Amino acid sequence: MSAGTIHGVGLGPGAADLMSVRADRLVRGARHLAFFRKRGRPGHARRLVEGMLRPDVVEYAMEYPVTTELAVSDPAYNAQLAAFYAESAAHLEALARAGEEVVVLCEGDPFFYGSFMHLHARLAGAVPVAVVPGVTGMSGAWTASGAPITWGDDVLTVATATLPEAELTRRVSDTDALVVMKVGRHLPKLRRALAAAGREGAAWLVEHAAMPEQRVVPLAEAGETAPYFAIVLVHGQGRRP
Amino acid sequence: MSAGTIHGVGLGPGAADLMSVRADRLVRGARHLAFFRKRGRPGHARRLVEGMLRPDVVEYAMEYPVTTELAVSDPAYNAQLAAFYAESAAHLEALARAGEEVVVLCEGDPFFYGSFMHLHARLAGAVPVAVVPGVTGMSGAWTASGAPITWGDDVLTVATATLPEAELTRRVSDTDALVVMKVGRHLPKLRRALAAAGREGAAWLVEHAAMPEQRVVPLAEAGETAPYFAIVLVHGQGRRP
Ligand SMILES: C[S@@+](CC[C@H](N)C(=O)[O-])C[C@H]1O[C@@H](n2cnc3c(N)ncnc32)[C@H](O)[C@@H]1O
Ligand SMILES: C[S@@+](CC[C@H](N)C(=O)[O-])C[C@H]1O[C@@H](n2cnc3c(N)ncnc32)[C@H](O)[C@@H]1O
Repeated sequence: MSAGTIHGVGLGPGAADLMSVRADRLVRGARHLAFFRKRGRPGHARRLVEGMLRPDVVEYAMEYPVTTELAVSDPAYNAQLAAFYAESAAHLEALARAGEEVVVLCEGDPFFYGSFMHLHARLAGAVPVAVVPGVTGMSGAWTASGAPITWGDDVLTVATATLPEAELTRRVSDTDALVVMKVGRHLPKLRRALAAAGREGAAWLVEHAAMPEQRVVPLAEAGETAPYFAIVLVHGQGRRP
Repeated sequence: MSAGTIHGVGLGPGAADLMSVRADRLVRGARHLAFFRKRGRPGHARRLVEGMLRPDVVEYAMEYPVTTELAVSDPAYNAQLAAFYAESAAHLEALARAGEEVVVLCEGDPFFYGSFMHLHARLAGAVPVAVVPGVTGMSGAWTASGAPITWGDDVLTVATATLPEAELTRRVSDTDALVVMKVGRHLPKLRRALAAAGREGAAWLVEHAAMPEQRVVPLAEAGETAPYFAIVLVHGQGRRP
């Protein structure tokens, strides 16, 4: 028997019709569907495909053992996550070896800061793995903002708000266009970094891009925290005829 | 009569089924279809939707008056392009004012280094304009490379190979992950910049990502030029459990 393929499928930023035609087809046809979620939550990716699934679909929820309870620098955090990814990968590998096709739901694009990457690193080479790129959360965010992110030869820097404040300040100072991911509870630090770089006035906060709760506000008018699905943008102002 | 909407529709990196469900629906339903192309060429975006169009579609090809015949810094280049965008925008605006819906085809994501941005800047506010985000060429490229672009808190720098060599070298030296767009005839300069930064060995050249002619090679094995659809990547190596 030949092995089935594990498909890491990008779902795009949040609206079901921003999924690619290929992703839509794979999700609707899936007999085995795997997705990440926080413990006790329905899971954002899973919610996005509600109403699209086969009646006989077999679901496999992969629940993060930790999210923000432990510091990322704590060795226990790393050990627990490593065990979790190994166990999840082993389950998917067993399905593939039994000849099953498996669809793994991924928010945005799978290979851009995605959890699927940790499964991919453990599975590639062992069983067939295929990746379907998706519209990223940041494309959703700049589209929601109503303005292009990069013009001409603008440099775009993508950083995560988890970086130390000094490093964030340096990055924010030295770029034309800016996208900051993983904003959440790091918003006050990010705001200080933008202010130190003299760019707070040009920054926008985009929450839940392409989702029903989408919200776009100048950063100056935002509060002290942001949800998990939040991106801060500074648009490039490069050359344009 | 109320005005129609001009839709800037992202088509994704090149495979027709990497278009979003929303883009697919808009393209198939379009009565008025506009697209950019080089003079005397069928146009890449137009080719991508071949076989999808209504029999009564009215097409409007917007042909660049110049591409590489004039230097970007030449004022004549700017003047010719500005007149071209103004004329194209006026044509689309007239259609929208007559109540027609218009689909403008965009490669990748419309608001990411896209030509549609120049129409958007002239039309937004005058008539309704909507943008459908797409999978970017760079997502297509890192997917083709078979490895994730960013992990943990990697910084990603996106630059264009049109930058001066010293600036390219600086950007290439000071980032975790790298995407270089608009490579084409700038490949030798980009290669020197990567070599100066000690990163040539880690760089990949991806040509025609997600298209039938897709090609992925270590930059060291590439030739002296690259086609228009070419991206150079260096993958981030950040934190991973
Ligand atoms: C673990 S990363 C996953 C990124 C995803 N793979 C992508 O391609 O966008 C999660 C972060 O992506 C950003 N994000 C993803 N989708 C978003 C959306 N629709 N609106 C706002 N932010 C989003 C947020 O910054 C969030 O903290
Ligand atoms: C004017 S920019 C347009 C970018 C587009 N809006 C996007 O979202 O990818 C053109 C450049 O995009 C890159 N590009 C776009 N699609 C590509 C693909 N499928 N394969 C390789 N490069 C691509 C090339 O570097 C090309 O020179």
